[in-house]
Amino acid sequence: MPPMNYRFSTRALSAKSSDVRDLLLHAQNPDIISLAGGLPAAEFFDVDGIRNAAASVLKHSSTSALQYGMTEGQPRLKAALKKHLASKGIRASDSTLIVTTGSQQGLDLIARAFINEGETIVVERPTYLAALQAFNLCAPNYVSINIDDQGGCVHELQSLENLPHEQKPKLIYVVTNFANPSGVSMSLERRRWLAQWAVKNEVFVLEDDPYGDLYDGSAPPTPLAAIAQSIPGASDWCGYASSLSKCLAPGLRIGWMVLPEALARIVVRLKQAMDLHTSTLTQEIAATYLESGAMDDRLVLIRNAYKLRRQTLTEALSKTFGSRISISPSTGGMFIWGRFTDGTQTRPLLAKAIEEKVIFVPGDVFYASDPDQSSLRLNFTSASPERLIEGVRRLAMAM
Amino acid sequence: MPPMNYRFSTRALSAKSSDVRDLLLHAQNPDIISLAGGLPAAEFFDVDGIRNAAASVLKHSSTSALQYGMTEGQPRLKAALKKHLASKGIRASDSTLIVTTGSQQGLDLIARAFINEGETIVVERPTYLAALQAFNLCAPNYVSINIDDQGGCVHELQSLENLPHEQKPKLIYVVTNFANPSGVSMSLERRRWLAQWAVKNEVFVLEDDPYGDLYDGSAPPTPLAAIAQSIPGASDWCGYASSLSKCLAPGLRIGWMVLPEALARIVVRLKQAMDLHTSTLTQEIAATYLESGAMDDRLVLIRNAYKLRRQTLTEALSKTFGSRISISPSTGGMFIWGRFTDGTQTRPLLAKAIEEKVIFVPGDVFYASDPDQSSLRLNFTSASPERLIEGVRRLAMAM
Repeated sequence: MPPMNYRFSTRALSAKSSDVRDLLLHAQNPDIISLAGGLPAAEFFDVDGIRNAAASVLKHSSTSALQYGMTEGQPRLKAALKKHLASKGIRASDSTLIVTTGSQQGLDLIARAFINEGETIVVERPTYLAALQAFNLCAPNYVSINIDDQGGCVHELQSLENLPHEQKPKLIYVVTNFANPSGVSMSLERRRWLAQWAVKNEVFVLEDDPYGDLYDGSAPPTPLAAIAQSIPGASDWCGYASSLSKCLAPGLRIGWMVLPEALARIVVRLKQAMDLHTSTLTQEIAATYLESGAMDDRLVLIRNAYKLRRQTLTEALSKTFGSRISISPSTGGMFIWGRFTDGTQTRPLLAKAIEEKVIFVPGDVFYASDPDQSSLRLNFTSASPERLIEGVRRLAMAM
Repeated sequence: MPPMNYRFSTRALSAKSSDVRDLLLHAQNPDIISLAGGLPAAEFFDVDGIRNAAASVLKHSSTSALQYGMTEGQPRLKAALKKHLASKGIRASDSTLIVTTGSQQGLDLIARAFINEGETIVVERPTYLAALQAFNLCAPNYVSINIDDQGGCVHELQSLENLPHEQKPKLIYVVTNFANPSGVSMSLERRRWLAQWAVKNEVFVLEDDPYGDLYDGSAPPTPLAAIAQSIPGASDWCGYASSLSKCLAPGLRIGWMVLPEALARIVVRLKQAMDLHTSTLTQEIAATYLESGAMDDRLVLIRNAYKLRRQTLTEALSKTFGSRISISPSTGGMFIWGRFTDGTQTRPLLAKAIEEKVIFVPGDVFYASDPDQSSLRLNFTSASPERLIEGVRRLAMAM
């Protein structure tokens, strides 16, 4: 086929294709052990609970589940989400809470609301790959802050304070709990500092929190969004995004954001033009499920299973690679972030790993710039403990 | 609340809010007869069929329905859609067919793929309001072509032929069958002419066809996309969008596009960044429903009911307003497009109509520029024949 003279938009051409997508195609081969994906373990989906919720919805509320709905979300789901958010200390109202088509859409919405080509977004290094992909559609400039054991090094933002206001970043994106890919959570002290910095500098912070409920032992610190609500003016500059994808089921595509009202109005207008609204059927199913109260027990089950898997993978890596690998401290989420201390490059390692029938994500894709070529992300949720151990054995073969 | 110094993006600010949204809030008042919305009649939703499909999916394919899926769509749904498309004469393959979150997302995707700020999109006048809203997010320049009884006056494109290539439009958007709002279908001859023009001038045409199955009597002409497949090179410049929202249920948010392969690749990349994928649950439910074959009978039922409603509304308008109103010829879809020949302005009329407890959409919102202030759109699908007659009586009172 000869190339067509398509005149694509600049932004479409700046949407870089990640080779992770091709990598994940390998995961469809059952002979391959995938530590590469970001899938929750399907064996812990509450299929019966969701089936009952769907049956109830299509019996008792079929019209609202099948008809067009309001862009900001179904009232029933919003009521259930307000309760869920309140349990985390976040107050939300009908005019600040917006249902999104997965939290991924939230990232696109916020970037579209704020970012003109070349304007600055602050991200962590490493940061969530698909956030970079969403932000790339606005062709932004990136500034990265490092991550250490206490989460994003927010104090690095001080270097931006003296910029003229129009050159300051317009958006700061942080994953506060068990971040993807680093696994690290931001300390309470840094959350407080960041909320204060945001209001002082009038820069909007989006807190992405898909993993906060997937903890071992005790819950992570209070969300940045909750802290912001107790600091005068800060809730005007802090937004919160989360989803049901990791705890209930990604296939529902139910995410949400809590935003200051003036921003929420703009975001609803954008979303209306983008997909009118999120599926009313999956919204009603999610509402019914949340109302049933089954989520709490299910989360206990998932947390226990994921704890075992994380410990299994961590131990296997430590035993196998010893001091050759350093692993970020984490007590939750879905990922282990490692770094080879002996200079092993994870791109060439991946090629050999595929031959050994194990895959992971080389860490370089999680950086807006200056990637660490010795890093890698390993997912522990979508393989059984036995497969995790075998996966590490194969990884050692590949080395 | 003092106004915040939010620095929204240029494109977010160019996303004009339509007052139609506020108008539709009136429709929630049961005392008001709404001829304003674009809702399919909920009483003809195949609730049992959808409930059975959902039960089957959550029994037999729960993992694929609840887990993350591929951005381009679930294989089972794509197989069912390929059959559906083939019945219209459109060949689609796995690499040219993309599932979207309603066809609305398709409009956003295509605009994002092609349009830089200020570049030209050709639309019909009048055209679909929510298409303008999606396109507005790219801050384009609009060129409008008129609509007459044969549909979009595509020959008007000739005036653009002599422009330097970089000033030519990048996108032509047409609703070929029972257009929203005009109700008119494009003639076969014009479809053929447009496909030929597109390939000759290397301008991409998006054919939006949500209403093609809602006909009286005989089906509308062959889709532009099918015609393009028989003209050398034309299928590289013609895309097709449709959805299940009008014939099955909007709440599923299932739309699709058939695109040339090189464009489909870009669009999948954009969609991945926008919402990862459309709900796998509603995709699997839709696939199961389509496989059941129940759609054909359901469509017969809907067509008959809508025919009665359209005839009822048309007759009531003619009897009541006589030669003061001219109505576009239509034999399908969901809307009647009228024009007061006596100079009545429909904006002030709407204000009085609300007092009389009937609402419609003033026609001006359907124009990219130079609106016809005497036009109005009336929906006939979401009210019973009795309510339609009463609605026209109230409209006469408002006059």
